[in-house]
Amino acid sequence: MSKKEIRKFDLSKIENPDFLRDCNYRELEGLSDDIRNYILEITAKNGGHVSSNLGVVDATIALCRSFDFSKDKIIFDVGHQSYTYKVLTGRSLETLRKKDGISGFQKMNESPYDHFEAGHSSTSISVANGMAIARDLNHENYNVIAFIGDSSISNGLAYEGLNNLAASNHKVIIVLNDNNMSISKPVGGMSRIFRRLSTSNIYIKSKHGTRRALQNTRFGRWLLRKFIGFKNWVKRKVINLTVFDQLGYAVIGPIDGHHIKSLEKAFEKAKKMEKSVVVHIKTIKGKGYPYAEKDITGDWHGLSSFNKETGEISNKEAQVSWSEQYKLLLKNEMAANDKIITIVPATGHGSALDSLFDVYPDRTFDVGIAEEHAFTMAGGLAVSGFHPVISIYSTFLQRSYDELSHDLARMNFNATILIDRAGLVGGDGETHQGIYDEAFLYTIPNVTITMASRGNEALSLIKESLCGHGVFAIRYPREFFSSKGEEVKKIPYGTWKTELLGKETAIISVGPVTVNLKDALVKEDKKVTLYNAIYLRPMDMQKVESLLSYNKVIIYNPYATKEGFANALIANLCSLGYKGEIKVLCVPTEFVKQATIDEQRELFHITVEDVLHNI
Amino acid sequence: MSKKEIRKFDLSKIENPDFLRDCNYRELEGLSDDIRNYILEITAKNGGHVSSNLGVVDATIALCRSFDFSKDKIIFDVGHQSYTYKVLTGRSLETLRKKDGISGFQKMNESPYDHFEAGHSSTSISVANGMAIARDLNHENYNVIAFIGDSSISNGLAYEGLNNLAASNHKVIIVLNDNNMSISKPVGGMSRIFRRLSTSNIYIKSKHGTRRALQNTRFGRWLLRKFIGFKNWVKRKVINLTVFDQLGYAVIGPIDGHHIKSLEKAFEKAKKMEKSVVVHIKTIKGKGYPYAEKDITGDWHGLSSFNKETGEISNKEAQVSWSEQYKLLLKNEMAANDKIITIVPATGHGSALDSLFDVYPDRTFDVGIAEEHAFTMAGGLAVSGFHPVISIYSTFLQRSYDELSHDLARMNFNATILIDRAGLVGGDGETHQGIYDEAFLYTIPNVTITMASRGNEALSLIKESLCGHGVFAIRYPREFFSSKGEEVKKIPYGTWKTELLGKETAIISVGPVTVNLKDALVKEDKKVTLYNAIYLRPMDMQKVESLLSYNKVIIYNPYATKEGFANALIANLCSLGYKGEIKVLCVPTEFVKQATIDEQRELFHITVEDVLHNI
Repeated sequence: MSKKEIRKFDLSKIENPDFLRDCNYRELEGLSDDIRNYILEITAKNGGHVSSNLGVVDATIALCRSFDFSKDKIIFDVGHQSYTYKVLTGRSLETLRKKDGISGFQKMNESPYDHFEAGHSSTSISVANGMAIARDLNHENYNVIAFIGDSSISNGLAYEGLNNLAASNHKVIIVLNDNNMSISKPVGGMSRIFRRLSTSNIYIKSKHGTRRALQNTRFGRWLLRKFIGFKNWVKRKVINLTVFDQLGYAVIGPIDGHHIKSLEKAFEKAKKMEKSVVVHIKTIKGKGYPYAEKDITGDWHGLSSFNKETGEISNKEAQVSWSEQYKLLLKNEMAANDKIITIVPATGHGSALDSLFDVYPDRTFDVGIAEEHAFTMAGGLAVSGFHPVISIYSTFLQRSYDELSHDLARMNFNATILIDRAGLVGGDGETHQGIYDEAFLYTIPNVTITMASRGNEALSLIKESLCGHGVFAIRYPREFFSSKGEEVKKIPYGTWKTELLGKETAIISVGPVTVNLKDALVKEDKKVTLYNAIYLRPMDMQKVESLLSYNKVIIYNPYATKEGFANALIANLCSLGYKGEIKVLCVPTEFVKQATIDEQRELFHITVEDVLHNI
Repeated sequence: MSKKEIRKFDLSKIENPDFLRDCNYRELEGLSDDIRNYILEITAKNGGHVSSNLGVVDATIALCRSFDFSKDKIIFDVGHQSYTYKVLTGRSLETLRKKDGISGFQKMNESPYDHFEAGHSSTSISVANGMAIARDLNHENYNVIAFIGDSSISNGLAYEGLNNLAASNHKVIIVLNDNNMSISKPVGGMSRIFRRLSTSNIYIKSKHGTRRALQNTRFGRWLLRKFIGFKNWVKRKVINLTVFDQLGYAVIGPIDGHHIKSLEKAFEKAKKMEKSVVVHIKTIKGKGYPYAEKDITGDWHGLSSFNKETGEISNKEAQVSWSEQYKLLLKNEMAANDKIITIVPATGHGSALDSLFDVYPDRTFDVGIAEEHAFTMAGGLAVSGFHPVISIYSTFLQRSYDELSHDLARMNFNATILIDRAGLVGGDGETHQGIYDEAFLYTIPNVTITMASRGNEALSLIKESLCGHGVFAIRYPREFFSSKGEEVKKIPYGTWKTELLGKETAIISVGPVTVNLKDALVKEDKKVTLYNAIYLRPMDMQKVESLLSYNKVIIYNPYATKEGFANALIANLCSLGYKGEIKVLCVPTEFVKQATIDEQRELFHITVEDVLHNI
């Protein structure tokens, strides 16, 4: 092959990133285009994260040329932007997000090139800090890189990591991927800093030394004194010092994140430094795919499938999601009551709340990836007579355990928590399962926990949550919602609904699957009692007592593990002296791998059919 | 009374802070001394927070003169430094930290002057942000002040608050109480920033405007260009811009936090500003009490009682605490195994670990009030072959729920969690109860949960936790430890210990109280079975099965609520077909008020005597 020939690479033949070092820049450009195209082809059918992956193709190539990840370590923050890295380290994306397939995030059991795993945001700097300590204690010599986006770095955990790493002697290279977009728009003071960052930063080792030297002479001290007024003017008007610099980091950049040569130069510089350094790169989200590049709402962040040619995003059978259903209900309540304030931690678009933000700009707050702040700020609103509604994914609610307890429930403030994606979530896998919140909310006093099975129940729950019951959690799944023409009836606080009345066996069922279960029971002519446990706490103790007359009680909750409602119901039955058989069909208490929700339910024997078999 | 006379004030006669505005500065100095003396007298007998309260006497007086807290709102971060505020708003400290007495933190039901409550750190900015939004939506006009220490501001939640407030139009005054000490020593890059803060800060509104104006003319652009090199020199060598300034805050200070007049001037300036502002004040922790002023280890942060004259801190009957016991055990293991790394989030002194830090400076990390970072950094260490031991108070573990799950348990990393102050905590009250962790750990897969009743069991648990069982939690209470001369025996993983073998009734008891229960059962000659449930998860299923032959099962765990172990044990018994009676003696699932631990146990009927009554 002649040296001048521009080689093309078969992506399916890549075994490791070593070949990149022999490529010229024109070949790399071609490779970059091919990878983008491949990512689009895969995500168009499998779903996944589009914009973020298109944005970091060039940067990933540059990283893999500058570093040797068979010994250097890289942690992609969240990990959703690691598709290119997967391809370059020899992984096909064909099975992306499928059962037993390639994960949408980093996974250590997929490849020795994956050095950690995430799914939740803002962990990379802390992890890198730990790895760097380990390296230095072992007297080893390799680079540790945290690759983090501008939105993730606004989270409290990332800041704790930044703050601690700054004071540590264990060197980490932080690559700040600044695409000025994040999931939707960047939020907060930190993003303002990025927007005004200067374009040149030379690392000078001895800044304190110089100042000390000046202070040692009379002239130096005079110079420093004289400088005060000017300095204030300068510092306010012209100089844009970064917060990283303030914390003690060297800063390189901003660098064009699509110019591989510049990136390599920056990485080489970073390698040579003795202390932790921030390499600030600017990338374009969705790079190379016009539909994604133009996206400002976050449509192209994560999606199920789309038409690659037309950019049309699939809307499965035009069904309404539970998220949309709750948006509509909340919108009506906000129209009727100007004390309601809605807060989201960067999940507004994902929970279909965009139009709410458009209609009520003063009473809606996207606080960015700041789950802790969302709940504590809600406390400040609640104590002032407003009713905060916090919309959040179940899995991210984990970040707010303490704030929900300490800043809301402890003072018994009124607040509504809309818990989206409660239950199994499908392709996102272990890091995003919404199966734990019911159980951990059960450990916090004063929290009402509910789940509707139909739209009219959802309406009743939203309305009830505004009636002064303290913290009121409403769970709903990542499922489509089918409204059946049932009359809107108020469900009294803390009560269950009797769906069917039979004998011998009573089933206590939770959530939308109750509707399917009822249909199946009727169809199969099973003469059992079916309770719809809309209130998981407090329980309907009258109906719990009625269970004493049945030989068998089946608790069916495919949206949660057993540690919350199921175990509490069993304990209540025992304390009432129930002597019959109790059968529990819940999600097992484990970290559940990626697969479709249906596949997962079959695997765990928690389908409607499994309930029928257990009668 | 002549105008020149220096009045003295009877602290017990103060009804509200209005009288302060009529005082001259010499009277205020006298008042300040009197309040310090009063705080010392009270805390010497009741215990409480000493240093932090002595440090903010002057600042609190100045705040109460500059603001009118019958309409302005103040949130003291954590709230442990609010004793002076309590005195000035008409509250006697006589019953401080006692049952039904005055809380050691802010409490809304104590006084209309308390506008919020806390106990955990770093919530004040987020709360203030919420309050300011409420004020502005209501078109009201008052000041909202967050009073926060330099250590609390290093926490991720505070940063999320700072970041969001910076981008909000709702004005808050942040008073940064910088005592350069925090609980023990300040940690991280942020503290470095405080140390080099400049002494003058003039608020100039239009910094962006000026830059834009310069860019509009050719000369201006030339000036900006020419400035680059000089600017870099200046910014590195001379200028100390604060991170607050970077985020967009106006900054006033540093101000001498003991000079009331200067403080008032600064507060007046802050009031006049249109946007959120940071008033940076410098105070001396322990001010006026030499023992506390000289303290650098944190001895005088929070304590039980002391001799005011001699400064001698009481060491109740020279007993060893469980904290000290675990410190000794951990020290031995660290000596034998150089892969063990100990991490504490600012609780090292409280958990008696100081000497560990002295002996192993390279393998001990105090990350400051950064509970999230502590666990995620541990993930980075664990994946690199080290064994992290995280020592934390039960109540602060709430902040790490997500990180424990997502960054440790999910990947089944080996790590030991030493959970200090598990169970009821006494005088700290609602915000510090350690009764929830057992239940919330039960909701996370892959976590072993244990509690020893004696020193030899503790040794066995520490050793077992290092043997590759994933995340291994060891709970221990805020109690004194009495070592009985029993032989050191290895307790096999996941097993319970049979303390007594009888019939009819079996008691499953948890933690150190088991020793007292055994003594009482022997003394009263009760022929029952007593299991010591050292492993709360996994359970000893062989012993659980043996329970089927008893008519009555009593579950006794006065260190936790029932949602974890107790309910899980009941569910296991039911699934095995147990038909006997089950009695549960746990802490009720509520926010438990301050009182001594004994008082609380009596109140909840969970004493050893209550168990005997239930047989």
